[in-house]
Amino acid sequence: MSIKVNDKFWERYFKLIRDEMIPYQWNVLHDQENITIDKERDDENIPSEKSHAIQNLKIAAGLAEGDHYGWLFQDSDVYKWLEAASNSYAIHPDEKLLSMMDEVISLIEAAQDEDGYISTYYQINNPKLKFRRLFESHELYCAGHLIEAAVAHYKATGSERLITVSNQFVQCIKNHFGDEEGKINGADGHQEIELALVKLYEVTKDESLLELSAYFLEVRGQDPDFYKKQLEENIENGLSQGPIPTINNEYHQSHQPVMEQEEAVGHAVRLVYMAAAMADVAYYLNNEKMYEACKKIWKNIVTKRMYITGGIGSTVHGEAFTYDYDLPNDTMYCETCASIGMMFFAKNMLKHETDASYSDILERCLYNTVISGVALDGKHFFYVNPLEVQPEACQKDPGKSHVKATRPSWFGCACCPPNIARTLTSLDQYIYSSNEDSVFAHLFMDNEGEINLDKGTVAIRQETTMPYSGNVRFYLELDNINKMRLGIRIPSWAEDFQIIKDGKEVEGKLDRGYLYLEISKRQTVIDVHFEMKAIQWASHPLVRGNQGKVALQRGPFVYCLEEEDNGENLHLNSITNQQVTEKPVGDSALGDIVLLETIGQKEKITKEWNERLYQKYATKEVEQTQLTFIPYYTWANRSSGQMQVWVNKKE
Amino acid sequence: MSIKVNDKFWERYFKLIRDEMIPYQWNVLHDQENITIDKERDDENIPSEKSHAIQNLKIAAGLAEGDHYGWLFQDSDVYKWLEAASNSYAIHPDEKLLSMMDEVISLIEAAQDEDGYISTYYQINNPKLKFRRLFESHELYCAGHLIEAAVAHYKATGSERLITVSNQFVQCIKNHFGDEEGKINGADGHQEIELALVKLYEVTKDESLLELSAYFLEVRGQDPDFYKKQLEENIENGLSQGPIPTINNEYHQSHQPVMEQEEAVGHAVRLVYMAAAMADVAYYLNNEKMYEACKKIWKNIVTKRMYITGGIGSTVHGEAFTYDYDLPNDTMYCETCASIGMMFFAKNMLKHETDASYSDILERCLYNTVISGVALDGKHFFYVNPLEVQPEACQKDPGKSHVKATRPSWFGCACCPPNIARTLTSLDQYIYSSNEDSVFAHLFMDNEGEINLDKGTVAIRQETTMPYSGNVRFYLELDNINKMRLGIRIPSWAEDFQIIKDGKEVEGKLDRGYLYLEISKRQTVIDVHFEMKAIQWASHPLVRGNQGKVALQRGPFVYCLEEEDNGENLHLNSITNQQVTEKPVGDSALGDIVLLETIGQKEKITKEWNERLYQKYATKEVEQTQLTFIPYYTWANRSSGQMQVWVNKKE
Repeated sequence: MSIKVNDKFWERYFKLIRDEMIPYQWNVLHDQENITIDKERDDENIPSEKSHAIQNLKIAAGLAEGDHYGWLFQDSDVYKWLEAASNSYAIHPDEKLLSMMDEVISLIEAAQDEDGYISTYYQINNPKLKFRRLFESHELYCAGHLIEAAVAHYKATGSERLITVSNQFVQCIKNHFGDEEGKINGADGHQEIELALVKLYEVTKDESLLELSAYFLEVRGQDPDFYKKQLEENIENGLSQGPIPTINNEYHQSHQPVMEQEEAVGHAVRLVYMAAAMADVAYYLNNEKMYEACKKIWKNIVTKRMYITGGIGSTVHGEAFTYDYDLPNDTMYCETCASIGMMFFAKNMLKHETDASYSDILERCLYNTVISGVALDGKHFFYVNPLEVQPEACQKDPGKSHVKATRPSWFGCACCPPNIARTLTSLDQYIYSSNEDSVFAHLFMDNEGEINLDKGTVAIRQETTMPYSGNVRFYLELDNINKMRLGIRIPSWAEDFQIIKDGKEVEGKLDRGYLYLEISKRQTVIDVHFEMKAIQWASHPLVRGNQGKVALQRGPFVYCLEEEDNGENLHLNSITNQQVTEKPVGDSALGDIVLLETIGQKEKITKEWNERLYQKYATKEVEQTQLTFIPYYTWANRSSGQMQVWVNKKE
Repeated sequence: MSIKVNDKFWERYFKLIRDEMIPYQWNVLHDQENITIDKERDDENIPSEKSHAIQNLKIAAGLAEGDHYGWLFQDSDVYKWLEAASNSYAIHPDEKLLSMMDEVISLIEAAQDEDGYISTYYQINNPKLKFRRLFESHELYCAGHLIEAAVAHYKATGSERLITVSNQFVQCIKNHFGDEEGKINGADGHQEIELALVKLYEVTKDESLLELSAYFLEVRGQDPDFYKKQLEENIENGLSQGPIPTINNEYHQSHQPVMEQEEAVGHAVRLVYMAAAMADVAYYLNNEKMYEACKKIWKNIVTKRMYITGGIGSTVHGEAFTYDYDLPNDTMYCETCASIGMMFFAKNMLKHETDASYSDILERCLYNTVISGVALDGKHFFYVNPLEVQPEACQKDPGKSHVKATRPSWFGCACCPPNIARTLTSLDQYIYSSNEDSVFAHLFMDNEGEINLDKGTVAIRQETTMPYSGNVRFYLELDNINKMRLGIRIPSWAEDFQIIKDGKEVEGKLDRGYLYLEISKRQTVIDVHFEMKAIQWASHPLVRGNQGKVALQRGPFVYCLEEEDNGENLHLNSITNQQVTEKPVGDSALGDIVLLETIGQKEKITKEWNERLYQKYATKEVEQTQLTFIPYYTWANRSSGQMQVWVNKKE
């Protein structure tokens, strides 16, 4: 499959990534940018003076002197940058970027140990403890990002340099890990290598990589004391001193075998990276039991633990899931990376079954929490994506110190910015999937390319008004085949739709959210129209914070109120039964967007409340007010102010 | 003034304190009770193996060997026990208790250094750092509790042994603190000695104690770097090593001079202990400016930062105030001790002005958050007093680990249990105040005693049906005077009232919430009837969590819903305009209480919600339901379940 995205909405991001994010992040990684590195929350232990990531590699390579600085996983910032740069290069080749990448690759080659090992913290500061503190070491996590960068770089440039580095590191890992006597029989505390190994398999076809990934998945949680025992052994062997920290196995999903896990618990990014890998391994190894386990985790997330914005992780403590229906709007985590992980998970589930319940969530994550993670200027980033913000609370309530009212420029823990860059530049991989005789269209954006089916090829092109309105035209041209099927996702936000093929309206029953068309002419034009009206969503009654409230959505975009448009005290507003109207604005401060407007009510703070906190209940006074909603992803791009997704509904 | 409380409602507490709490706490302090000591939140640094408080004194006295164990302020648990025991002894003399107290007093005498100093942590583990880490040392805090115990013990027994110990410690403190060259010019990080010194003045009439208290109040915040400088000096002098922890001056109200503080910030207990001392010092030293400062702090708390239960402290982080109108019901702190401190503050403000806005709050704290702090069995205690609880959240949301769904038996930081005991046993001091020719009745409970006015004495007796219903009868008998004034507080919860004196209804305008009666006969009987109906309170519209909700109150008691009576998912209930009826139950599992009942509505979780988290908004289905409310202080005395004070109001 080879698809090129040439969509106005997304090309703006590609250009931002190319012109702003990649050079900016390059400078950050080289400690050259004059920026403030924000802590993601109040915590004295968060490294925030500088990135030092390139310098760490130089020190490990023997090209510089000094200590490691930063997180144990600081190397992964470099790998994610490299992956984003490779993807961007594939979209828009550029000699300068190629040489920037080559420079970094040379450094990685130089930093790699003879035996294939790379992890600068352990190489520089703690070689005795290599692979011996897996609960927190992130060595295999970093290896995974190295492998993902290698695959992206190979696909973009054809160069095998990083594939070679990866293969050597994989060999090192195989030498150390496994259930054979004398090997380490456990997995990294942060899942990532599991999904990366499948990607390496996809380009090298080395089936041992699938087996290694399956091994890491299956060993997880078999011995819940594995991490603790490693630490105890280190003390016994004089390699480190106590005390042994309390290890929360749920945090890294090692509390029970992954096949038995039925709930999404612990650190949200780890969970979805693991689940994405499980879905992929299950697909390639035909492991039905593993796919069933994936389905349970998926269902638990999307029916009980996911925000309407596609955000996951209800608490900052452990950046974690909590319990069913616990979805507070102002203290949650909703990390950008976690929703990126949900996209991975959805994409891999779609390999098993073409089911809109996967692709709807994929779209929901992408158009809301994922792109909310980056400012419209491409230089400021959210780690945490709240659904309700009061700037005063972020400053004065320490329990909300992780919630930012504006996007900072960089973080001490810089996982999100390069993750956004690498994901958006790989968007071409999310639009379609295919099997022997069918193409499935999951996302709608201008694009063109070719998709190989069993017996031939189909050239496909989408022209669409999405995400602004719901018109999509598909151009199909068959090569060497006589027929195929096209499955078109009917989005959950489209209350009605119309599909016209060869001048005739197509009737048909939806199959798990897709409408299927038989294509038998060499050239076919299909016109699709999705009704794209503002929808008012309600939450399950057990979601306490959303009781009596609705959230607006139009097309893939969830909407929100901002103080800039609606004045202060957003919580005093109510949506009534008045019509919600659409107002396209081509060149607002927030770009080309469609506003939603309605006449609502606002509770008045009457003068009886002066100097009173409580008084006897009386019917509230309200006044009519115009409510203006903006797409959620555009919030916090103007002034700093209040924001709210869920708004009172006056019945 | 000498008052004896002989009230059925309160005598139950006195007996519990005498029979259960004091012996139980004695055993805990002696590490003899077979109990589980709970941590007040998830934090590895909280000492929770045992109390060790008596053992610490023994070690300091040279009577045992070993290290100090527990908090820096572990000694204060002993002093608060001693104060409670003394108060209880005054109510109900008991030789065994006297000898228990004598045993502890002997230990304190033995532990006191030659120079008057006592603080077992520093004596045992760190003598070089005495008075050199005031930001956290609690040395003067413990001194304050020692002094309060001394005053209570002296009043109860006439023994001056602890007064002597206190005077020696005060002399030690005077030798070390002050603005003279070479002395420490600052105050303890935890206010307490300031209010204790005034109490010692009240019995010894040593005016230098008032000046010392005023000094500690006035030096506070003059140099915001004081605590940091102390730590820097210790490092310079080789007494300790770095790094210097971050000191948050707002936490201990040392960010600016106390006279300039207009908002209640930082650790709630510290703030109200400080404010209580300020009110007292301002009273005795006629410091009008200091009283004005008190009024600003008072107003900020009661009009912007106090829960309807009289709880204060909106966050567990620093057990602190946050910002105006930030009163979350499920993550707050609302420490029992903080509401006890509010009672102190209110009591001292009443010395300046007889204003029901003080005494109403005093009553609100006492009948709700303070007695909520102790279980009906007298052996289990709340530190944190939430207004909304889901047991699942307490277990699975680490941000709510400090909120307990049932009262634990003891805490690693055991400040609350003995604080409740000492406060309830001193209730006789809160009922009345007086000036030259007037008596002011603030609280209503059966009691009798004598109050000295300038020219003579009045014998006073209350017989009342409070807190069950609103009838109060006062018997007054003048001795050596011809006339006096009686001011009777008209509670804010009494929507109507009637006062009959000598068979005639008394008319009159309220003066700051009090109705004044001229008494000129030797014997007078006054009958008061307060209307005591269920009131529905609303919150200021800026209190986000209470929007659209009401709280029920009847008489002094705030009410709540419990799962035990109302089934699960309390948040789905709404109060409608149906009548709220009273149902007295004399011998329920919760004792002699009045239930409030009403026919409300409960939102149904319809089957459309099966396996769905969000769906298009539709009018909710509701069903009629009986709602049963219990007094807030009685919650969590049966099963563990949900609880909710603020309930949806259906307009």
